[in-house]
Amino acid sequence: MRMALVKRWLVGPPMPLAQARHERLGKTVGLAVFASDPLSSVAYATEEILLVLILAGTAFLAYSMPIGVAIAVLIAVVVTSYRQTIRAYPSGGGAYIVSKENLGVFPGLVAGASLLIDYTLTVAVSVAAGVAAITSALPALFPYRVPIGIAAIVLIALGNLRGIRESGRLFAAPTYLFVVSMLALVVYGVASTLRGDVPPVAYATVPGAVESLSIVLLLRAFASGCTALTGIEAVSDGVPAFRPPEAENARTVMLWLGVISISLFLGITFLAYRLGVIPREGETVVSQLARHLYGSGLLYLEVQLATTLILLLAANTSFADFPRLAFFLARDRFIPRQFANQGDRLVFSNGIIILAGFAILLLIVFQGETHALIPLYAVGVFISFTLSQSGMVRRWLVLREAGWWWRVWISGIGAVVTGIVMLTIAATKFSHGAWIVVLLIPTLVAVFVVVHRHYDDVALQLSLEDIDHLPPVQNTVLVLVGDLHRGVLRAVRYAQSLSANAKAVYVEIDPERTRRLEERWGRWGMGLPLVVLTSPYRSLLGPLIDYIDRLQARDPDRIVTIILPEFVPARWWQQILHNQTALLIKGALLFRRNVVVTDVPYLLRR
Amino acid sequence: MRMALVKRWLVGPPMPLAQARHERLGKTVGLAVFASDPLSSVAYATEEILLVLILAGTAFLAYSMPIGVAIAVLIAVVVTSYRQTIRAYPSGGGAYIVSKENLGVFPGLVAGASLLIDYTLTVAVSVAAGVAAITSALPALFPYRVPIGIAAIVLIALGNLRGIRESGRLFAAPTYLFVVSMLALVVYGVASTLRGDVPPVAYATVPGAVESLSIVLLLRAFASGCTALTGIEAVSDGVPAFRPPEAENARTVMLWLGVISISLFLGITFLAYRLGVIPREGETVVSQLARHLYGSGLLYLEVQLATTLILLLAANTSFADFPRLAFFLARDRFIPRQFANQGDRLVFSNGIIILAGFAILLLIVFQGETHALIPLYAVGVFISFTLSQSGMVRRWLVLREAGWWWRVWISGIGAVVTGIVMLTIAATKFSHGAWIVVLLIPTLVAVFVVVHRHYDDVALQLSLEDIDHLPPVQNTVLVLVGDLHRGVLRAVRYAQSLSANAKAVYVEIDPERTRRLEERWGRWGMGLPLVVLTSPYRSLLGPLIDYIDRLQARDPDRIVTIILPEFVPARWWQQILHNQTALLIKGALLFRRNVVVTDVPYLLRR
Repeated sequence: MRMALVKRWLVGPPMPLAQARHERLGKTVGLAVFASDPLSSVAYATEEILLVLILAGTAFLAYSMPIGVAIAVLIAVVVTSYRQTIRAYPSGGGAYIVSKENLGVFPGLVAGASLLIDYTLTVAVSVAAGVAAITSALPALFPYRVPIGIAAIVLIALGNLRGIRESGRLFAAPTYLFVVSMLALVVYGVASTLRGDVPPVAYATVPGAVESLSIVLLLRAFASGCTALTGIEAVSDGVPAFRPPEAENARTVMLWLGVISISLFLGITFLAYRLGVIPREGETVVSQLARHLYGSGLLYLEVQLATTLILLLAANTSFADFPRLAFFLARDRFIPRQFANQGDRLVFSNGIIILAGFAILLLIVFQGETHALIPLYAVGVFISFTLSQSGMVRRWLVLREAGWWWRVWISGIGAVVTGIVMLTIAATKFSHGAWIVVLLIPTLVAVFVVVHRHYDDVALQLSLEDIDHLPPVQNTVLVLVGDLHRGVLRAVRYAQSLSANAKAVYVEIDPERTRRLEERWGRWGMGLPLVVLTSPYRSLLGPLIDYIDRLQARDPDRIVTIILPEFVPARWWQQILHNQTALLIKGALLFRRNVVVTDVPYLLRR
Repeated sequence: MRMALVKRWLVGPPMPLAQARHERLGKTVGLAVFASDPLSSVAYATEEILLVLILAGTAFLAYSMPIGVAIAVLIAVVVTSYRQTIRAYPSGGGAYIVSKENLGVFPGLVAGASLLIDYTLTVAVSVAAGVAAITSALPALFPYRVPIGIAAIVLIALGNLRGIRESGRLFAAPTYLFVVSMLALVVYGVASTLRGDVPPVAYATVPGAVESLSIVLLLRAFASGCTALTGIEAVSDGVPAFRPPEAENARTVMLWLGVISISLFLGITFLAYRLGVIPREGETVVSQLARHLYGSGLLYLEVQLATTLILLLAANTSFADFPRLAFFLARDRFIPRQFANQGDRLVFSNGIIILAGFAILLLIVFQGETHALIPLYAVGVFISFTLSQSGMVRRWLVLREAGWWWRVWISGIGAVVTGIVMLTIAATKFSHGAWIVVLLIPTLVAVFVVVHRHYDDVALQLSLEDIDHLPPVQNTVLVLVGDLHRGVLRAVRYAQSLSANAKAVYVEIDPERTRRLEERWGRWGMGLPLVVLTSPYRSLLGPLIDYIDRLQARDPDRIVTIILPEFVPARWWQQILHNQTALLIKGALLFRRNVVVTDVPYLLRR
């Protein structure tokens, strides 16, 4: 009961089904809702590119520009490709659904597993990066980044368990704040540097090269930068959330999203290059840029605040995406059905709790370092891109709608490009951590298959298809007696209410005690016959099971009901002061056919 | 089932009650059985005296002689006093029983708590000292002393769980081997040193003084040496184990025990003094003596082996004493009654397991160092000496048998002397660790009292004293239905076998599902009426509890039986793939009066 009160306080009272509002989004709010995840990666994508390049020495940081342009092109390809998916799936075309419908169950499961992993990483990476934005401004907090990150995840999870109602309004302000702050920073920065007003950042010490520049290193830098694309697929998942015409609005938002994403990413990358920013521990690249251009005043703090907020919103997005995907997987019986249960606040509580748990685990294991998490990230999302676009190719080929051939081209280019990028990411980051994801995806798929098989088997075994009525059951009611007290008397009366032929059963350990019990039974047994079973080894279970065997030998379909008179102490700890016989008997008889064990509790007062 | 096999392999098959043999002991074997614990302390008692004295520098090690003589006198007093107890309690007079009978329940409980603690310390100290004897001979094993000690405790515990049958023979050989080895060492050593054949031990470095000699230090050395008395009371506990005349035989054994104990202890102490042995880490005093007198050959190894064996036997003694005392306490309802259960090997398994657990804990916490454990030791046993002897004084005063006045004197001297020693030990060792025991004893006594009160209360509430027959109970049988499958059909038939008025109850979450269920119920419901309860908050429990309330509002004594159709997957892990509704309902209704919850399991095949 006390637990229930804590829960109420944390997540609020239950909500009737009628409260399930379907807030529809216009384009402006829609952009805000879906942009936080893809745009927030601007806060760290450039830095991740630089962190790889710097291994070859500061001289090669300039390679960030061509890499940035390549990623911008990739964003354009994916956005174009996904705008087609939106039109084809106006009721929501996530990678799991698109792959499953067009390529088959197995590719669908691979996409599902990849996305579950990536959503978890989105939470961990975004929170880590969000905390990094705070600790860049307030270095004193740097040692506490893990607990701060955990607290942030717990708060976001609690918010989602309550069911955030005003999601649109909640999202709009920080997203636009971030977009405006970043655009201002980029415009002001680019203008100033082009005018030559701002000198490059001066560093006291510059790290030396530890690797020589190579194709592999460049590809790895590119792969790290590809985190900029994570979350871009969210619009296609959420088409039904838009106001009509849903698909058109979603396509427009997708386009805006691509344009803003490319502008901010290229702008930040260009500024970092022009101002010679070197990534370093304790302060993010964006923080260095803002501090260099604005000084450490209010404008700088505002940029950091906006960055933190959008990153936390990005993490929050996964708290919608993960439970929704888990719901689809549970509905299709690939994961435990508990994930399809709506809690009393109309949210998928189990998905939220599991996501928060794993994200916190990641944060702890990787010590809250964005950079350490990045190698695991983006593999999953690019697998889902590839599968989803391949599914679309298949779909155009099968449906042959008007204009199918250029649609095949668009989706095909998307599939091929994202496929190549996916392989590049997996290969270049494999030894840095991507191997975990590469192992985890087939493991998850195997779990999905095993779970599905189990549910199918259960459904088959429980099916009513080929049966009609069952014959009435014969039932023997036995009260298991170890002693004679008030609780036993009640159990005797209870047994008599169930069956006119009920019996009491006593397992004899010591003949002297049996004699005494029989005497008292004559006085208090209320007419219930007492059967005494002997037990040479002082075991309670052996003789009882033998007796049940004998009863069922004549009639195997007969149900034997064992009634256990049990007194329940008023306080939980008092339970350990009493023999756990009832538990033992229940455990031993649990897997026995045609035996029902019934506790008749006798509640003790305080 | 697999657990059961492991258990069989470790502790053997169950034994019928008829196998409970009562092996009676003659004086020779009896001495061996009861001597291991008190004699084994010879292996470390002298060393513990020296370890305190050396704090004042090597010059003061000679004080060990007068301290040794004082302890020898103490042994004589306690032995004389206990020989009286044996005569008065031929059926066994442990401190718990003697104190409880003569002084009252509370002193009995203090004695019981003290002894439980001391038995646990006996195991830890004896095993630590036994391992020290091994590692003195084989220094390479020194770093592994904790795991070796744990292994020894586990083996002893397993042996006791099997029920060691040949205890007499098992004990006789090592005990007499130890007595003979030690006597030989003492006689040979004393003769050689008196003849002047043996020079004192030469040390490369001699530790300097860190404290000045004081009365407190001398008293502390004395208190440390008092560990020599632990276990000496065991004979009085075990009088019924002797052949008739039990008391006479036990008294004789007690006398021998005193004589041997004093001789060995004084002999070792004298030798250590004459040969100038300084206690040091890594080699025990006895080992140093034997090595100095015998060299490192076979004779030396034999002494070490005998020492180890008797120390392990001493630990083993506690595995008889502790469960027996726990049995008495459980029989009198001061500790959970599980301690009064004989396992299927006719031993008190729970006492054995608890003792092993706590002894291992002590060994780990104190890193297997005898010296670190000693301050906790002997407080408990001297409390029990004092209480037991005081009890005897009270007894003589009340009974006024022939010669009562000199019996009062003997027991009185025993009580006063052991009382003073007890206070000395507690005071001088308090800050070194005895405070733990001083706090633990009242805590244990408080637990005893709370447990006893609970059992009394339960017995009162369950008593049949003032009642006769109960009226027959009215029973409403409800099948809680969430779906319609084979398991539900069986539960319907089961409910119909219990009551002609059974009903099915369904909590409506979604009207559409209700409609479908009602349709199917018409076809498969086998005539059981279906009650639909609406649930605005999609909660299962709320509407169900409301319904039960309504049923019992008219008739509060009516029992409501909730039948839960439950399918049981073939493998345990599959359980987590299904909703734990049954568990939830059972949990919610557990503390409700007049509600019985019955699972009707439907077992799935593999």
